[in-house]
Amino acid sequence: MLHKILEPYNIILASASPRRAELLKLLGLEYTVRVSNVDEPENDDEPAQQAIRHAMNKAVAISLNSGERDMVIAADTIVVLDGRILGKPEHEDMAAHYLKQLSGREHIVITAICVSVNNRLVCDHEQSRVRFAELSDTEITEYVASKEPMDKAGAYGIQGLGSQFISEIEGCYFNVMGFPIHKFYRLVNALRQEGLL
Amino acid sequence: MLHKILEPYNIILASASPRRAELLKLLGLEYTVRVSNVDEPENDDEPAQQAIRHAMNKAVAISLNSGERDMVIAADTIVVLDGRILGKPEHEDMAAHYLKQLSGREHIVITAICVSVNNRLVCDHEQSRVRFAELSDTEITEYVASKEPMDKAGAYGIQGLGSQFISEIEGCYFNVMGFPIHKFYRLVNALRQEGLL
Repeated sequence: MLHKILEPYNIILASASPRRAELLKLLGLEYTVRVSNVDEPENDDEPAQQAIRHAMNKAVAISLNSGERDMVIAADTIVVLDGRILGKPEHEDMAAHYLKQLSGREHIVITAICVSVNNRLVCDHEQSRVRFAELSDTEITEYVASKEPMDKAGAYGIQGLGSQFISEIEGCYFNVMGFPIHKFYRLVNALRQEGLL
Repeated sequence: MLHKILEPYNIILASASPRRAELLKLLGLEYTVRVSNVDEPENDDEPAQQAIRHAMNKAVAISLNSGERDMVIAADTIVVLDGRILGKPEHEDMAAHYLKQLSGREHIVITAICVSVNNRLVCDHEQSRVRFAELSDTEITEYVASKEPMDKAGAYGIQGLGSQFISEIEGCYFNVMGFPIHKFYRLVNALRQEGLL
């Protein structure tokens, strides 16, 4: 199990997301948070590739200053609708617009995860489908007024008030929350089997 | 949204489960917990029917003493493998045995939910599929030693250390956690549309 395998390591979470920190706690892991100032310009790459690139940049920026027993974990989550990435909304109107687009439909959430340890960097990503209920205009207005959508990719939080609008997911729930726990478990086990941990 | 619709009601959670309480908090709802001492004998009913009957019994036991502005919420969660219900393990060997059965396979989680308000009782249930990774004997031993499996149907908690073993779910994550939030949202909206709230 993760808390046994990772006991000898100083885990450094290269992310300011309180949700990711919460999930590391769930796993019984101790960690410190160290956040880099990496720019995240979008380009024409496939959505999954963009997420991986962003997570890689975050991991590399922090691991450059890390020690031998440090394990740096970075992640990047994107919401994709019709092949288009919905980022964090810049203002309330944009949040309402995003929610209107998601209403009654299925979208994809991709989280890329990178683990850097002993001068190695391994990355992978997870993809889940999320189905939203039909939202009324009142519901959208009330939800935006709650401020919850404002700091979240796709303008919703599955682990908050947004939970009531999600009728179904297919894949990893924690991936939608921003950190694909089972994928992380597999990355760590793979590193161990290769003798790198 | 739920916290707006339910503002005039005193919500009574007829369950001692800290996970259900946590999910009501997630929804921004205030509530009090009132737990009944209902026996839960198993019988030959279909699993979903058994869950509904248990949730009903819990809701009825509490709502008998409730007032006009009280809304009683009860739920019952069961884990079903090959048509057989896996309850809470009675001892560590049973937990290990359950986990061995779940390893590398898919099972079903059913949560029945009942809402009682204004002398009405409405019930429904939600069903999700959960896929477990292959677990090694060491992992099972370590997980049982963590004690997490002991008070949980099916001997695992998706919102704890158990999260690392879950490769995929299909359906409502919160249902697996013990309270199907979207189903609750739909029950409440249905009650409102019928003019009962």
